[in-house]
Amino acid sequence: MERRILRTECPDAKGLIAGITGTCFKYQYNIIKNDQFSTFDDSRFFMRTELEGDFSTADSFIEELRHVIPDGGICKLMPIQRKKVLVLVTKEAHVLGDLLIKSYAGALPIDIVGVIGNYDKLEDLTRKFDIPFVTVSHEGLSREEHEARMLEAISRFEFDYVVLAKYMRILTPNFVNSFPNGSLINIHHSFLPAFIGAKPYQQAFNRGVKIIGATAHFVTNDLDEGPIIAQDVIKVNHNYSAESMAKAGRDVERQVLVRALSRVVDGKVFIHGNKTVVF
Amino acid sequence: MERRILRTECPDAKGLIAGITGTCFKYQYNIIKNDQFSTFDDSRFFMRTELEGDFSTADSFIEELRHVIPDGGICKLMPIQRKKVLVLVTKEAHVLGDLLIKSYAGALPIDIVGVIGNYDKLEDLTRKFDIPFVTVSHEGLSREEHEARMLEAISRFEFDYVVLAKYMRILTPNFVNSFPNGSLINIHHSFLPAFIGAKPYQQAFNRGVKIIGATAHFVTNDLDEGPIIAQDVIKVNHNYSAESMAKAGRDVERQVLVRALSRVVDGKVFIHGNKTVVF
Amino acid sequence: MERRILRTECPDAKGLIAGITGTCFKYQYNIIKNDQFSTFDDSRFFMRTELEGDFSTADSFIEELRHVIPDGGICKLMPIQRKKVLVLVTKEAHVLGDLLIKSYAGALPIDIVGVIGNYDKLEDLTRKFDIPFVTVSHEGLSREEHEARMLEAISRFEFDYVVLAKYMRILTPNFVNSFPNGSLINIHHSFLPAFIGAKPYQQAFNRGVKIIGATAHFVTNDLDEGPIIAQDVIKVNHNYSAESMAKAGRDVERQVLVRALSRVVDGKVFIHGNKTVVF
Amino acid sequence: MERRILRTECPDAKGLIAGITGTCFKYQYNIIKNDQFSTFDDSRFFMRTELEGDFSTADSFIEELRHVIPDGGICKLMPIQRKKVLVLVTKEAHVLGDLLIKSYAGALPIDIVGVIGNYDKLEDLTRKFDIPFVTVSHEGLSREEHEARMLEAISRFEFDYVVLAKYMRILTPNFVNSFPNGSLINIHHSFLPAFIGAKPYQQAFNRGVKIIGATAHFVTNDLDEGPIIAQDVIKVNHNYSAESMAKAGRDVERQVLVRALSRVVDGKVFIHGNKTVVF
Repeated sequence: MERRILRTECPDAKGLIAGITGTCFKYQYNIIKNDQFSTFDDSRFFMRTELEGDFSTADSFIEELRHVIPDGGICKLMPIQRKKVLVLVTKEAHVLGDLLIKSYAGALPIDIVGVIGNYDKLEDLTRKFDIPFVTVSHEGLSREEHEARMLEAISRFEFDYVVLAKYMRILTPNFVNSFPNGSLINIHHSFLPAFIGAKPYQQAFNRGVKIIGATAHFVTNDLDEGPIIAQDVIKVNHNYSAESMAKAGRDVERQVLVRALSRVVDGKVFIHGNKTVVF
Repeated sequence: MERRILRTECPDAKGLIAGITGTCFKYQYNIIKNDQFSTFDDSRFFMRTELEGDFSTADSFIEELRHVIPDGGICKLMPIQRKKVLVLVTKEAHVLGDLLIKSYAGALPIDIVGVIGNYDKLEDLTRKFDIPFVTVSHEGLSREEHEARMLEAISRFEFDYVVLAKYMRILTPNFVNSFPNGSLINIHHSFLPAFIGAKPYQQAFNRGVKIIGATAHFVTNDLDEGPIIAQDVIKVNHNYSAESMAKAGRDVERQVLVRALSRVVDGKVFIHGNKTVVF
Repeated sequence: MERRILRTECPDAKGLIAGITGTCFKYQYNIIKNDQFSTFDDSRFFMRTELEGDFSTADSFIEELRHVIPDGGICKLMPIQRKKVLVLVTKEAHVLGDLLIKSYAGALPIDIVGVIGNYDKLEDLTRKFDIPFVTVSHEGLSREEHEARMLEAISRFEFDYVVLAKYMRILTPNFVNSFPNGSLINIHHSFLPAFIGAKPYQQAFNRGVKIIGATAHFVTNDLDEGPIIAQDVIKVNHNYSAESMAKAGRDVERQVLVRALSRVVDGKVFIHGNKTVVF
Repeated sequence: MERRILRTECPDAKGLIAGITGTCFKYQYNIIKNDQFSTFDDSRFFMRTELEGDFSTADSFIEELRHVIPDGGICKLMPIQRKKVLVLVTKEAHVLGDLLIKSYAGALPIDIVGVIGNYDKLEDLTRKFDIPFVTVSHEGLSREEHEARMLEAISRFEFDYVVLAKYMRILTPNFVNSFPNGSLINIHHSFLPAFIGAKPYQQAFNRGVKIIGATAHFVTNDLDEGPIIAQDVIKVNHNYSAESMAKAGRDVERQVLVRALSRVVDGKVFIHGNKTVVF
C-alpha cells in the first residue's frame, strides 16, 4: 500500500468535501489525514488529503476528480518522496549548517543537490558533506552580470526548491521570474513587516523593541513582501546590543526556515495571493 | 440560516468522511469547518463539523447518519449557544475574577449561574456581578459531610459544566461520580504529571525547575489524572521564591482554564480514555 | 525595618557600583536586590537597588550619594507603596476589567482612582468596583475641544500614572505635554513597529502574518513611537479572520499592559531616549 | 585591556557587594557587567562580575578579596577562552550535529576534543569535522566492564566538560564520581521531573499531555535528579504519536543543551545543592 498527497484548490462550492472524499472512497483510497480551508474574503477552497491505496488507477481518479471540482480548480496527486533543494548562501553558516545536518541525519526529507555562494566561505563546510559548492563572486560585476552568472550556475542543477539561506543579495525581477512561483524560499532576519530592508537587527536595536523574530517566505518581486510561510520570535531586552540580537536571532532564523521548508516539501503549503494556507 | 455543530465519534472505517459529508450535502447543510482525527492505538474516529443550514429536518438527518457510522458510534447535533457554568472556589480570586469579567464582557460564551465556596471570601466579588454565592463551610465537618452539603447546594443550580476554579479540596469518588463524565473541569496549578498533589509551587521551588505551568483537565476518580484539555508554562529562574512562583503561576492558571473552557463549550473537545482530542 | 527602592541614573564612570553600594553600607542599608546597566551607545548608567534599613537618615544618604555620582546624575529613594492610576477607555472591557480585578484582588499594587471614557459603555463595570466613572463624549466636538474637556475631567483626580486602556483616540501634542514624561502609558494592539496606525488586526490579516502581538509603551508625541516597555505575541494562522485575530489579541493586550504596569509601579523601568531599561 | 570573569560564592553578609566592587575599583578593574543573588532559604551569596583591566596584579587582588568575603567563601578569576568539551553519544545525530556545527562556525566557544560512542553510527559525521571518534561497544559486557572501558577511553582526552549528547546508558555512581562536580552535563528528553526514566515520549503520549520538553542538567548520582540548568517545551496535540513527539522533541533537546552549555562555559552557572543559579 502506497501513500500519496492529494492537493486540491478551487473556488468553494457546496458538497466539495463530500464529492472529493466520495471519489477517494470509490477508488478505495483510505483517508489518513484530511485538512481543508475556505478563505474568508474570496471563498477559495484548499484541501490536502493524505491517501493510502493502490495508485495504479491514479490517472482516472484525477480525471474523475476534475469533474467534481468547479472550473478553474486544480487537483494533483503528489508522491511522498525526498525533494531536491539547491541552497544559495553568502557567509553565514548557521542556516546552511542546520540544513546539512538535518538532511544528513534524515530529519528533513530533502537532498541538498548543491550550494552556490557569492563568497567561498562556506565551501569547506559544504564539501564535508560531499555536496558540490560553486562560488559566483559578485565582485566587480553589475547586479545584472552577477545574476546572469548565478542563473548559469543554477541551471547546472536539477532541483524542486531553491532556498536562500542568508543569501544577502537583492534580487532583480528578472532573477525571481526565472523560477516557478512557490519554488524560491527566503529566510528574512526580522519579524516582517517590521524592519523591512537592510540591517533589521540594527533597526530593532535602535527602536528598542523587546522581541525580535524571523520570517520564512516565498520570494516574489515585492521585496520582503512575498507570502509568509512561518514566523517566530524571541524575547530580548536592554542587555542586547545589535550584535547580540543578531547572534540570538540566528537560532530563530534557522528554526523558522526549517519549519517552513518541512511544511513545503510535505505538500502542506498553498499560496493564495500574498498569503499562505499552511496545514 | 442557522449554525450547529455535528459531533461524531465511532470506530474508524473506510469511507466515513465521505459518508458523513455526503449526508450533510444531501440535507443541504453547508460545511463551514471540518476537523477529524483517528487515534493511533485503537482507531477511534472523531469528527467535528460546523454546519450551516435549515435544521427543521435535523431529526431525520441524525437518523440517517446513524446508519452511516459503525455500530457503537455516536452522532449529535449541538446548538451554538451560551453554556451554563457553576463555579466552585476556595479563596483565590484570579480564576473566578477572570471568568466573571469574560462572561460579563461577552468574551466567553458562558453564563455563570452561581458560585459556591468553602469560604465566603469571594462572595463580595461574585455579588458585584449579581451572581448568587453560597458558602458551604467545611469547618468541623468530615469530608463526607461537607461533600453532602456541597452536593445539596449544587443541586439547587441548573448547569452544563462545573468548574473548579482553585477549589482546594480533595474530592471523593462519590462526589466525582455525581456528575456526568466530561462535565467537571479543574485547573491544577502545575504542569502535570509533574508535582501531583499538594503545594506544587513549593515542590517546583524545591526541585529548582526553570519552568512552571498549569493544567486544565476533566476530573475523574484518578486524582490529578483526568484527561488533560490544555496546558501552558512560564519560565522562572533562581530569583523566584515559592511565593513568587505561585504569583506568576496565577496568570497561567487562568489563561489555561479559559482556553480549555472555551474549547469545551464550543464542542471542540472529545474525551478518549484518559486523553482528549481537542480540535 | 523598612524597604525602599534607590533609583540611580547618571553618566557611567569607574567605581560607580563600589561608590553607591559603599554608601549604602555606610548607612547600614542592606541590599536585597541590585540591578545595573550601562548603555552601549552613550554609556549612560542605570541602577535599581532594593534596600532594607532605617530610613530616618535618608536625606543625608541621598545628599552623600549626590557627591558619589557624576554631575547630571539623578538618585531617588522611592517608597514601596500602592500607586494611584487613572484609566482612560473607549468601549472595550478586557483591559479595564483585568486592571479592576487585579487591583481588587491585590495582584497589582495599584489603586484605580477613576475611569474616564469617551463612551459610557464601561460605566456599569467600573461602578461595580465603587470607582468613579466620568463620560466625556467626543461627539460634535473638535479634537481640541474634546481634549480640553478630558483634561478638565482628568484634573479632578490625583494620580501617579494615566493608563490608556484601549482609549481609541488620537492624542494631540498639547494633550501629551500635559503629563510628566513617563506617566502616560498606552497599550497598542500590534507588535510595534509593525502595523502602526489604525486597524492593526485588519492590516495583519491583509498581510498574512503568522504571529500577532501587542506593545505597551510610554506615550510621547511621536505617535506609536514612544519608548517600548513590554511586548508579547501569539501565533495565528490562515483560520483567523481579522475579527478572530482581534479577539485572540485581547488576551495579549491585557497581559502586556499588566506586565508593563507592574514593572513601572515597582520602579523597574527607566526611560532612555526612545528606549527603556527594564530590570 | 583584558577581560576576565570573577566568580564569588560565600555565605551572605552585609556590605559584600560594596566590599567586592570596592576591591575591583582599587585594582582599577572596570565592571562591565555584574550579577548577584542571595538564596532565599540559606542566604548563600553568588556573584558573577565581568571585569576589564590589567590582570598582572590578579594574584594579590584575589588574595585581598579572600579577606573581604566570609570564611568558607570562594572567589575565582576565570579567563574568557574556548573550553574543551568531550562528547558521549549513542545513535542520535541531532545534538552532536548541532554542537559540531556551532563549534565549527564559532557560534559556541567550545572545542570538541573528541566523541565517544557505544555505537559507531556517528563516527562518519564526527570525522567530517576532523574530530577523533572512539567506539566503546557495550555488547557482551557488564555495566561495570563497559564503564571501565569508557573511563579508559575518556582518560585519553583532556577536557573541561563532558557532555552526554543523548548517551543512552544508565551511569553507575562510580562512573559519575570519576568527574568533578559540575563537569558532567546531560540532556534529558523530558520536562523533568515529569517522565523520569525510560521512554519519556512514550510516557508523554500515554498520559496525553499537551506540552513536551527537555531538560539540561548536571549529572549527579541521583538519576535524572541533578541540578537543572535549562528547560524548554513545545506544544503538542492529539495529532502527535509517540514517534512524532520524539521527532519534535529533538529540536528542543538540542536547543536546551546548547543554551545550558553556553551559560556554563561563560561562567554564568553556579551549583547550589540540587539547584542552579544561572545569571
